[in-house]
Amino acid sequence: MTWLVYLSGEIHSDWREQIIAGSNSLGLPVNFVSPVTDHAASDAAGDVLGGEEKSFWRDHKSSKVNAIRTKTLIEKSDLAVIRFGDKYKQWNAAFDAGYCAALGKPYITLHDESIIHPLKEVDAAAMAWAEEPAQVVEILQYVVSSGGSDR
Amino acid sequence: MTWLVYLSGEIHSDWREQIIAGSNSLGLPVNFVSPVTDHAASDAAGDVLGGEEKSFWRDHKSSKVNAIRTKTLIEKSDLAVIRFGDKYKQWNAAFDAGYCAALGKPYITLHDESIIHPLKEVDAAAMAWAEEPAQVVEILQYVVSSGGSDR
Amino acid sequence: MTWLVYLSGEIHSDWREQIIAGSNSLGLPVNFVSPVTDHAASDAAGDVLGGEEKSFWRDHKSSKVNAIRTKTLIEKSDLAVIRFGDKYKQWNAAFDAGYCAALGKPYITLHDESIIHPLKEVDAAAMAWAEEPAQVVEILQYVVSSGGSDR
Amino acid sequence: MTWLVYLSGEIHSDWREQIIAGSNSLGLPVNFVSPVTDHAASDAAGDVLGGEEKSFWRDHKSSKVNAIRTKTLIEKSDLAVIRFGDKYKQWNAAFDAGYCAALGKPYITLHDESIIHPLKEVDAAAMAWAEEPAQVVEILQYVVSSGGSDR
Amino acid sequence: MTWLVYLSGEIHSDWREQIIAGSNSLGLPVNFVSPVTDHAASDAAGDVLGGEEKSFWRDHKSSKVNAIRTKTLIEKSDLAVIRFGDKYKQWNAAFDAGYCAALGKPYITLHDESIIHPLKEVDAAAMAWAEEPAQVVEILQYVVSSGGSDR
Amino acid sequence: MTWLVYLSGEIHSDWREQIIAGSNSLGLPVNFVSPVTDHAASDAAGDVLGGEEKSFWRDHKSSKVNAIRTKTLIEKSDLAVIRFGDKYKQWNAAFDAGYCAALGKPYITLHDESIIHPLKEVDAAAMAWAEEPAQVVEILQYVVSSGGSDR
Amino acid sequence: MTWLVYLSGEIHSDWREQIIAGSNSLGLPVNFVSPVTDHAASDAAGDVLGGEEKSFWRDHKSSKVNAIRTKTLIEKSDLAVIRFGDKYKQWNAAFDAGYCAALGKPYITLHDESIIHPLKEVDAAAMAWAEEPAQVVEILQYVVSSGGSDR
Amino acid sequence: MTWLVYLSGEIHSDWREQIIAGSNSLGLPVNFVSPVTDHAASDAAGDVLGGEEKSFWRDHKSSKVNAIRTKTLIEKSDLAVIRFGDKYKQWNAAFDAGYCAALGKPYITLHDESIIHPLKEVDAAAMAWAEEPAQVVEILQYVVSSGGSDR
Repeated sequence: MTWLVYLSGEIHSDWREQIIAGSNSLGLPVNFVSPVTDHAASDAAGDVLGGEEKSFWRDHKSSKVNAIRTKTLIEKSDLAVIRFGDKYKQWNAAFDAGYCAALGKPYITLHDESIIHPLKEVDAAAMAWAEEPAQVVEILQYVVSSGGSDR
Repeated sequence: MTWLVYLSGEIHSDWREQIIAGSNSLGLPVNFVSPVTDHAASDAAGDVLGGEEKSFWRDHKSSKVNAIRTKTLIEKSDLAVIRFGDKYKQWNAAFDAGYCAALGKPYITLHDESIIHPLKEVDAAAMAWAEEPAQVVEILQYVVSSGGSDR
Repeated sequence: MTWLVYLSGEIHSDWREQIIAGSNSLGLPVNFVSPVTDHAASDAAGDVLGGEEKSFWRDHKSSKVNAIRTKTLIEKSDLAVIRFGDKYKQWNAAFDAGYCAALGKPYITLHDESIIHPLKEVDAAAMAWAEEPAQVVEILQYVVSSGGSDR
Repeated sequence: MTWLVYLSGEIHSDWREQIIAGSNSLGLPVNFVSPVTDHAASDAAGDVLGGEEKSFWRDHKSSKVNAIRTKTLIEKSDLAVIRFGDKYKQWNAAFDAGYCAALGKPYITLHDESIIHPLKEVDAAAMAWAEEPAQVVEILQYVVSSGGSDR
Repeated sequence: MTWLVYLSGEIHSDWREQIIAGSNSLGLPVNFVSPVTDHAASDAAGDVLGGEEKSFWRDHKSSKVNAIRTKTLIEKSDLAVIRFGDKYKQWNAAFDAGYCAALGKPYITLHDESIIHPLKEVDAAAMAWAEEPAQVVEILQYVVSSGGSDR
Repeated sequence: MTWLVYLSGEIHSDWREQIIAGSNSLGLPVNFVSPVTDHAASDAAGDVLGGEEKSFWRDHKSSKVNAIRTKTLIEKSDLAVIRFGDKYKQWNAAFDAGYCAALGKPYITLHDESIIHPLKEVDAAAMAWAEEPAQVVEILQYVVSSGGSDR
Repeated sequence: MTWLVYLSGEIHSDWREQIIAGSNSLGLPVNFVSPVTDHAASDAAGDVLGGEEKSFWRDHKSSKVNAIRTKTLIEKSDLAVIRFGDKYKQWNAAFDAGYCAALGKPYITLHDESIIHPLKEVDAAAMAWAEEPAQVVEILQYVVSSGGSDR
Repeated sequence: MTWLVYLSGEIHSDWREQIIAGSNSLGLPVNFVSPVTDHAASDAAGDVLGGEEKSFWRDHKSSKVNAIRTKTLIEKSDLAVIRFGDKYKQWNAAFDAGYCAALGKPYITLHDESIIHPLKEVDAAAMAWAEEPAQVVEILQYVVSSGGSDR
């Protein structure tokens, strides 16, 4: 069985690359999917549908186009990893966490100790809290293992 | 991952061909499914089950046979594109939109600006409104991309 | 048990009044709910949220405000009656039918014989097709009866 | 029919009071529910279950006790209003929005224009965006009205 | 709490009356609902919608009108009792049993020992098999009791 | 796309063979699954779990073992064909129909005209009624076709 | 709003009475339901359906009759409290916990510190772990409160 | 079709190996999955996320990491086999049974006759009770067979 893991949240550091590289170096049967992580492209996702004067509607159209992708990939995934960094509001990451929680989709949060308190509701519905990508890789290795009498 | 896209609605123009050709020329990992688009064949779908004097029952039988196909394909799809042209009532297309909305299945509408107002409820539940097949292809290209750190 | 019936569709004739009056005159245990049927008010439902230059966005905002009401009432109802008249596109009525179908919510269509063919998909998923409000009232009387050994 | 509306988010301004007062002054058939909005009490919700040295576990226990309430009330509600203020991370509000979105529960966002961009994913799944509590009250008045032929 | 019990199946003996009388004489907090049990009325349920020459379509229309009632009542019930007598095909009763099974709705079968074998699939998904209405009443009395420390 | 079709009901005639042969001769992309159709083996399915003196419990155990198979295969199928012959009670076939109906799984009934009336509830929830296996094959051919602009 | 709380598990101590008395003395808007807690009556719940020589079948029949009650009450409840004592296997309590977890129904466990390790999977899916009934009452008081700006 | 079978419960005997070997020797189209069955590894599953002084929290973190695996695999499986041995509390096995029951996932229990009574609720919701792994293999062989006219 191959697992599908959705990587949600922060797009300004290389945490995705670290997790993917770590998983691949261990040969884990895990595929990764993500939102579009090119910030400018993501903001412009709806521009092909016509320009908007109001920023609200430009954002609205782009967010919905992005949601076609993110909603579908989250629902297909077996597990999500949701990363909160130290910048920006990152409400989309918390939104994804709530979405997972309501679907009963397990997720792992990845964030520093300094933001434990504001993330308490998000962490309360998570299956694990990790501080480093390497910890996530170890969890993945354990979860997808076929050790013991399992085959 | 290969995406499955359902193409619902108008059967009297080549919008399906344009989308499929555009997607194929870009090599997108997308498969397309549709209702039976041969009008006469669709109207006669239930005739094999015996003739009917009343047109209501002939239509009823054919529509249910068609629904075996359409309901199944919509439910299996990741996304629907729903096309409204300038002729006919096209209530079946609006019915498909409502069906998608209730299932939480994302859909894109494809129609001219001239029918924005009567389609407002249908558009309100859509993820995007496009006027041209080429726009749909661009959205598909974006949505199914594996760019960024995604792989 | 009191039944809740949603009356969807045409807003330019008095079919709702006829059904409600007929049901009330029989003392049936049925409550009726509807979308807002004041056309101008419905089109302006989102105006309180700020003006829009583009008609698409005015319609979009109003349709979503209306959908808070219609989606909630449809989901709470036990049965819908969906009326198609002889004017306008009425795609919202077909959308409601598709929404009901996907939810497994039973509905009755109410329309003239002249539009059987374009409504064939909508009728195929309906529990009954009536041509007159009085027929709907008779169906309601039968459906909600407590006759026989039932009490 | 009485509507149940969940008021999620910011606890440091009187937006809840404004909406409730506005609704009550109009005599709307709406009941309101909320998370516990006493900040200190909310943080201490799990203390009765025993002290914790690590703040993570204190938060964890309190968040789960709070979630018994919030999850239940959200699921019972017909509509949520989700408020984002100008202070704090407010990830719990975005989490509630994602939770509503996955359940298909309609919600209205309430926030200033200045945070449109970071809230674009949250707004994209909302049924309306309001800037002032008074707008929310107007929307409620419209949505729960029994005008037209509805009774 | 009041329980709602659906009484499905045979309409040619007084088993419903026995169960209802037994439950009422014990003052149990149970309401009972049933399909329309007047055979002729049930067969004619769709006649108001217009005559049919083919018996298939007359049956079809009446069955769907009946299904508005039966499907709704089964889904609202807490428990079903499904009675198989010694006459007729009674496929509708077995259909109701399958419907309950798929919904996870508990049901009790009520039938003679002589038809154990052909009912084995229906009994396999039931919560109990009774031979006499009085046994059903005893089960109801037990199930809805508030004895012990329950209140 | 390959379709999975469940063949439910009568085990004493060769209707399954006819449908499968017809479908295969046309090269349709359809796989077929069925309950175990060896009558004696089916009745003995639970015997490995220990003998029973009472026929009720032998039947009970065997029916549950069979249900592991039938329930799983029905749920995985895209479509069911449910055959009623002229012998036996066949309540299990009607049970399967009700199970499909509650799941929203489309099914086709296959039976003679002589049993239209007792099967009216079962037919009312079906997508088609056929009298001959060859008709079912024609319906399958139509439903799974990729004609028109579909590919 | 009145909350419904299901009290599952141990029947040989007075923990239910303590919680109910505590809640009532505070005037909390909480109703409590439970399985039948009379051990002998529970074991004999199916006896009215006929005697069994094998203890397996007597247990089987009684357990299913009990399940009509417990399954229904758990599904209707807003919250469960699941008590593990120091005697017996109590697999039914763990079964109820798993049932709640799969439904997304919140539950609180109530047990001594000495059995933390064998209950770790049950506690991992719980919203809270309490050691004393008084703690459960405090949690209930907090959860159902209407304090703050909530009304 | 290949079946996926989840093997839950006891980890101190070789019942899993027996079932897998028996199935493989018959060439059955069955894949097996299990929780991590290395007791020490399972207890330490969360240790990578940081040490805990309180055993409750160490257990809590490990159980949740394990649940990512077990919950996902149970939900993907077609059938579960749940083994109760003669040692330990085994509440996790009963929890898995309740989880399966609420999902409508069929399961077979595997245990000695000596624990029939405490397992009566767990057995009541099972599709079969076996005493020996060889019986489970025979059931699997029957359930996944393609005999009769099935192919």
